[in-house]
Amino acid sequence: MTPTIHASEVADMGLADHGEGLCDWSAQSMPILARLRERYAAEKPFAGRRIAIAVHITTETANLALTLQAGGAEVFLCASNVRTTNDAVAAYAARQGVHVHGIQGEDRETYAAHCHRVLDARPHLVIDDGADLTGLLHGARTDAASDVVAGLEETTAGIQRIRSLEADGLLRYPVIAVNEARTKHLFDNRYGTGQSTMDAVLRLTNTLVAGSRVVVAGYGMCGKGVAARARGMGADVLVTEVDHVRALEAVMDGYRVMEMDRAAELGDLFITVTSSKNVLRAEHFALMPDGAIVCNSGHFDVEIDVPALRAAARKHTRPRPGVDQYTLANGRRITLLAGGEVVNLAAAEGNPATLMDMSFTNQVLGCEYLLRNAAHMDRRVHALPADIDDHVADLKLRTLGVGIDTLSEEQIAYLRSWDQGSA
Amino acid sequence: MTPTIHASEVADMGLADHGEGLCDWSAQSMPILARLRERYAAEKPFAGRRIAIAVHITTETANLALTLQAGGAEVFLCASNVRTTNDAVAAYAARQGVHVHGIQGEDRETYAAHCHRVLDARPHLVIDDGADLTGLLHGARTDAASDVVAGLEETTAGIQRIRSLEADGLLRYPVIAVNEARTKHLFDNRYGTGQSTMDAVLRLTNTLVAGSRVVVAGYGMCGKGVAARARGMGADVLVTEVDHVRALEAVMDGYRVMEMDRAAELGDLFITVTSSKNVLRAEHFALMPDGAIVCNSGHFDVEIDVPALRAAARKHTRPRPGVDQYTLANGRRITLLAGGEVVNLAAAEGNPATLMDMSFTNQVLGCEYLLRNAAHMDRRVHALPADIDDHVADLKLRTLGVGIDTLSEEQIAYLRSWDQGSA
Amino acid sequence: MTPTIHASEVADMGLADHGEGLCDWSAQSMPILARLRERYAAEKPFAGRRIAIAVHITTETANLALTLQAGGAEVFLCASNVRTTNDAVAAYAARQGVHVHGIQGEDRETYAAHCHRVLDARPHLVIDDGADLTGLLHGARTDAASDVVAGLEETTAGIQRIRSLEADGLLRYPVIAVNEARTKHLFDNRYGTGQSTMDAVLRLTNTLVAGSRVVVAGYGMCGKGVAARARGMGADVLVTEVDHVRALEAVMDGYRVMEMDRAAELGDLFITVTSSKNVLRAEHFALMPDGAIVCNSGHFDVEIDVPALRAAARKHTRPRPGVDQYTLANGRRITLLAGGEVVNLAAAEGNPATLMDMSFTNQVLGCEYLLRNAAHMDRRVHALPADIDDHVADLKLRTLGVGIDTLSEEQIAYLRSWDQGSA
Amino acid sequence: MTPTIHASEVADMGLADHGEGLCDWSAQSMPILARLRERYAAEKPFAGRRIAIAVHITTETANLALTLQAGGAEVFLCASNVRTTNDAVAAYAARQGVHVHGIQGEDRETYAAHCHRVLDARPHLVIDDGADLTGLLHGARTDAASDVVAGLEETTAGIQRIRSLEADGLLRYPVIAVNEARTKHLFDNRYGTGQSTMDAVLRLTNTLVAGSRVVVAGYGMCGKGVAARARGMGADVLVTEVDHVRALEAVMDGYRVMEMDRAAELGDLFITVTSSKNVLRAEHFALMPDGAIVCNSGHFDVEIDVPALRAAARKHTRPRPGVDQYTLANGRRITLLAGGEVVNLAAAEGNPATLMDMSFTNQVLGCEYLLRNAAHMDRRVHALPADIDDHVADLKLRTLGVGIDTLSEEQIAYLRSWDQGSA
Repeated sequence: MTPTIHASEVADMGLADHGEGLCDWSAQSMPILARLRERYAAEKPFAGRRIAIAVHITTETANLALTLQAGGAEVFLCASNVRTTNDAVAAYAARQGVHVHGIQGEDRETYAAHCHRVLDARPHLVIDDGADLTGLLHGARTDAASDVVAGLEETTAGIQRIRSLEADGLLRYPVIAVNEARTKHLFDNRYGTGQSTMDAVLRLTNTLVAGSRVVVAGYGMCGKGVAARARGMGADVLVTEVDHVRALEAVMDGYRVMEMDRAAELGDLFITVTSSKNVLRAEHFALMPDGAIVCNSGHFDVEIDVPALRAAARKHTRPRPGVDQYTLANGRRITLLAGGEVVNLAAAEGNPATLMDMSFTNQVLGCEYLLRNAAHMDRRVHALPADIDDHVADLKLRTLGVGIDTLSEEQIAYLRSWDQGSA
Repeated sequence: MTPTIHASEVADMGLADHGEGLCDWSAQSMPILARLRERYAAEKPFAGRRIAIAVHITTETANLALTLQAGGAEVFLCASNVRTTNDAVAAYAARQGVHVHGIQGEDRETYAAHCHRVLDARPHLVIDDGADLTGLLHGARTDAASDVVAGLEETTAGIQRIRSLEADGLLRYPVIAVNEARTKHLFDNRYGTGQSTMDAVLRLTNTLVAGSRVVVAGYGMCGKGVAARARGMGADVLVTEVDHVRALEAVMDGYRVMEMDRAAELGDLFITVTSSKNVLRAEHFALMPDGAIVCNSGHFDVEIDVPALRAAARKHTRPRPGVDQYTLANGRRITLLAGGEVVNLAAAEGNPATLMDMSFTNQVLGCEYLLRNAAHMDRRVHALPADIDDHVADLKLRTLGVGIDTLSEEQIAYLRSWDQGSA
Repeated sequence: MTPTIHASEVADMGLADHGEGLCDWSAQSMPILARLRERYAAEKPFAGRRIAIAVHITTETANLALTLQAGGAEVFLCASNVRTTNDAVAAYAARQGVHVHGIQGEDRETYAAHCHRVLDARPHLVIDDGADLTGLLHGARTDAASDVVAGLEETTAGIQRIRSLEADGLLRYPVIAVNEARTKHLFDNRYGTGQSTMDAVLRLTNTLVAGSRVVVAGYGMCGKGVAARARGMGADVLVTEVDHVRALEAVMDGYRVMEMDRAAELGDLFITVTSSKNVLRAEHFALMPDGAIVCNSGHFDVEIDVPALRAAARKHTRPRPGVDQYTLANGRRITLLAGGEVVNLAAAEGNPATLMDMSFTNQVLGCEYLLRNAAHMDRRVHALPADIDDHVADLKLRTLGVGIDTLSEEQIAYLRSWDQGSA
Repeated sequence: MTPTIHASEVADMGLADHGEGLCDWSAQSMPILARLRERYAAEKPFAGRRIAIAVHITTETANLALTLQAGGAEVFLCASNVRTTNDAVAAYAARQGVHVHGIQGEDRETYAAHCHRVLDARPHLVIDDGADLTGLLHGARTDAASDVVAGLEETTAGIQRIRSLEADGLLRYPVIAVNEARTKHLFDNRYGTGQSTMDAVLRLTNTLVAGSRVVVAGYGMCGKGVAARARGMGADVLVTEVDHVRALEAVMDGYRVMEMDRAAELGDLFITVTSSKNVLRAEHFALMPDGAIVCNSGHFDVEIDVPALRAAARKHTRPRPGVDQYTLANGRRITLLAGGEVVNLAAAEGNPATLMDMSFTNQVLGCEYLLRNAAHMDRRVHALPADIDDHVADLKLRTLGVGIDTLSEEQIAYLRSWDQGSA
């Protein structure tokens, strides 16, 4: 089928200059992507290729799109969340020739329509963040899947969905789990989500973290990051988990670990980062102390059962933008941030550029790799090749001016030997 | 061949009572191993089996040996390092019927002889810590290997050796890499080595950590643990690495990362935990400031080039037990701890019992598993089954009185779905 | 002389509703001030008194003003910095009857005019934050000083100025150094400035703190707080000081301490909290690496020599609001935040309400105390009475639901005895 | 009266060589005291003076004594605790000519006798650590007080006693509260006691701190240090206090604060550092979980009600040296460390030499100051002069190679001005 190219749909093209300033600012912290952009401008590895991107439309994402475009790709960009589009950035990217479909605060229907428009372009590669395009390509839009050579997924939640497709034998093309690259999830998820989540909480509330009790639901890399930052700001941190080993790690890291039924009574601030559903629900709201603040920093907005919270409230106020306060029948007030959407993107600016530099370099190098190798790869979830992962770390260290040791010949020989013990 | 059972050889059987007190004390912190011991006493899963153990002869190791013995095994125990045997513990284990061959401070020849005696028993299972028995069974003592059904290895360094055997196609039986179980290396290596290494440094030197510069060579789990504890005690921590991703993790954790050539000039205290060789060597000693303290907490004593340090010294004193001070030609004093042997075992008491409880439960459950399954397993390095790993964490959480959440049916369904995104 | 009451001058009275929402939100975290407000509404201790307040016009300050007003005072409020007025808050306070003179971003002349208008009211008590009113009352506006019974000062910088007046024998009335109350400077300055300063840096830049080098100039309570938070977010923190003991504390806290001449070459982010002048100046800018970010969180905008930075720049851009980037002759870019003004107030929301609750309760109880006692107090700087200080801590603990132990009779007797040693 | 000089009484003069090695080792970390020793050897400021020292007989104390001796003093040394004498150090000091009266583990009668012998020498200056000599000089041994010009006190507990004497109008000579010097209590008490207390716990128990609940009773400088180190080792730290402000500080530092009645049920490890009495008593023991460990790091052994613990026990064992385990009627075991004596000295080596270097330099410079000035000083507790305090910090920074900034003329003028605000 012939691709259909829709004109960009953004909030206000007049914001493009402002968006350019913002993107240039973050580009200052994305030196390794910038290096690739220079190489791509010469080599054009993506010439003739259509690449779909469904990722939060932030300054860093714009820089990703422009890097692929510099390499010859035609790029189609939509958001991966209704609240996370920076309209100025969208306008700037559109002006630069990226096909952008995203508006801050768009409703679900518009969001879906934008996804569809991106798929109408019949992309060869799909960069997903939560697997919404992948979901469509295996559901309502199988028609658009025939040109897709491969996909790449940025999030834990998205990989979970794609593995479900794989488990059901439905996956139509190979997908690289970019999220599982060491230089992605060990950094972006941990140091990035940790910082940006707490940043969002402060922008919305200016609450004092020191001396407060912060309940972190989930102790994966995101949860580890959030817990570390909350403690670093002086909180008494409690952790809930469903995995025994992670729970035990949290204990040994000095956090209190308990069931949410118990933590609900104690917390001043609750943050969900589980990739699961209804982690905070009616039974928990009823237990929370007056003034408790709840927010979600997982990809999907289902971690907090917001409908149940609304249903339980006898009063609702909005004291500050992005801050909804619900008064329950017991007289206690529960404060919900960003409507339960991913708070670090909806109310702050997402993960800092210097980390997205690594995540998106993985995406871009993954695209290159897939174009060369997808034809021979199984229709399943693949790891990003370890040498790409290592290369990204190496590049990042260089731009940071950090030198490390290299193994000597003698050391390499020793590490490969088995007959040099004590006996 | 018929097994040869040698009489135990320990320093002084008169220490057995003292050893019993020590072992009982640590048993108070090993509740999950104790539960197994009760079950084994009834089920005798190891009846008729000979099990060789080459592990530091600490109170926890004695409890491991006695647990296997309770399960019907005949147990043969030697040390995995010349300096790490607790003679009182050895005496107690011997009195309880374990065949013990180990004496604190024995020379290398005696150490090797003790390993040989254990192998003379022609064990069915081999629990190794550094792969010394495994090395012998594939070198000088292939004669003793024919009854061996399988092995288990406790350390990073030992697995490295065994993987080299595997890579050379020489491995004679399947080996479980117990070290790589999540409930082992995430805990024992990190929280255990972290604490016990700093503990050893204080016992030997009473130096102030706060405000000092501590150089940690290696940022694997042991290095992460040591760095975290050193910082937790107030140090300014520097990290050296050869792996790009680990180096970058150390940077983002807020440590300074640099080549050892540069760190050598800055450090007050150097700790090697690399599993490599000659990580600190002549060129580094020459750069160190006056009074620098160097020690190793990796398994083998080759991480610091002690012969080179001795050769470079124009003067040697021993101001305190276990503390050697070498004055170099440049007039500066370098202080070596525990002669470069694994300092947390040679000068403190190794990793705390509550962690060894997990590591050794993995060993014991691994033994059970191997006896049932080894016949069908390839001659390579295997992971400990994930359900054992999870079970150990579950048991540990229960003994700590920590409850966690369980996934609801709805959540399980959600986590398995792929068609519930935002689009 | 007769007081002259000027009509309020705020940016836009139409913002009053929004301001009310904001003030109510912060009032939720100011329970001890709220208790006082209830008592004052009944007792009216300030009836007939005019109170001048020159404090950043934030939600917390509005709550302070309304509390005094509830107690019968006529309150006159101006800002203590040109950039820190929240116009919505100012409008709300004005609507409630406070005489407000302050507009966000007003120029220096307007700022001064607003101070003068407040003094035209001939206040009996002066609550100062940086001692600008006090300065005027001892300089250009001695005419307005005759009714002043006493003053109270909120900041380190202000107390420094007032002690200079005292040292010169010029102080016209007693002043309570509220800043030096334990429940003020140990909390507001440390936990408050620590958090709000880092908050401001993130709002302005979204820079990654983890793995960056943060230089904190000054290691008083504010500096200790900023350093702790920067470390808690993963930074490698360097400290500069002029006091030997504080410098040594910073060393023992694990920070690197050095002269600014050396730190300037190393820092990614510089934060001044010294109460001194030109702490960062031309010689330092010239040494900073490309991309260095500089900001001030001390009260006055003189800690960074901004004119020198502007003079040294060959190019200036403003990539984001509040962010000025100067390119120096050496080609390196220096990024200045909030124009060198106190960044936690100019670009974030100042210290969290739960801390200001304590600081402002000290102010209010200090006002009560002064009205009863000022007549008998010397014209010098006084400490807030210790029992008030202790009472504030007691109240705060109660609202936090924290119980503590009390000394038994036996313990009190023991603590007072001298004849119960070991000999 | 004529002084009576008793011959030294130490455990074994044959240990002197070993003691010399130990003292030389710690001298390597006491460079500023060493500088003074050189100056004193030339100047002999203490010629003809008798100085009594009642301080734990550690390597650092020996170096203190030898420094005073180098300055011409005749030095008389006894212990300040029955369990804290290092016999090797005592022997070495005695061999060097110090009059030493102290034996590790001496009974209370012997301890008292040794104090008396030191007083028999009719000292001119008294360096006290817990005020035992001072107590005697104001009680049973007023006869020996007539030559005393002044005293110096090293501990919080001792100053408390001496202030009680002062309050009762009984103090016979001026005393400098060395403990209150910034370079003493901010360092020795915090970083020293913090580290050495945790060190002692590990030496005695090898317990895992990570993931355990540590209850710290008292949040003064010692308590702050212990809490920080326990957290730095991975503990979940709970704090008890009787002071409101300190309790609130602990809350804001992220610790849980509660009454001991509640903490008693939760703790795995209890550490008292209060200077009070019976902080842990029968009612608390009855609440503690099985296996709880209790110890004291305050100066006197009355913080834990050990007699009550013994009385409540139905069984007693000693699994390791210094470790007593009591089984209560409820079947739970309580483990007492070091018999309730000051654990960091009784079971580890006290505060590290590099900190004692500062504390003891304060003592020595305080002695010099008192000999010059005591005649004109009131009979009360005096602060160490601020310039001495600052000088000690300056010296320490120099030996650490740390440079700091100095104020420029312009900055000094600014800091002294009052007319340079914003208005």
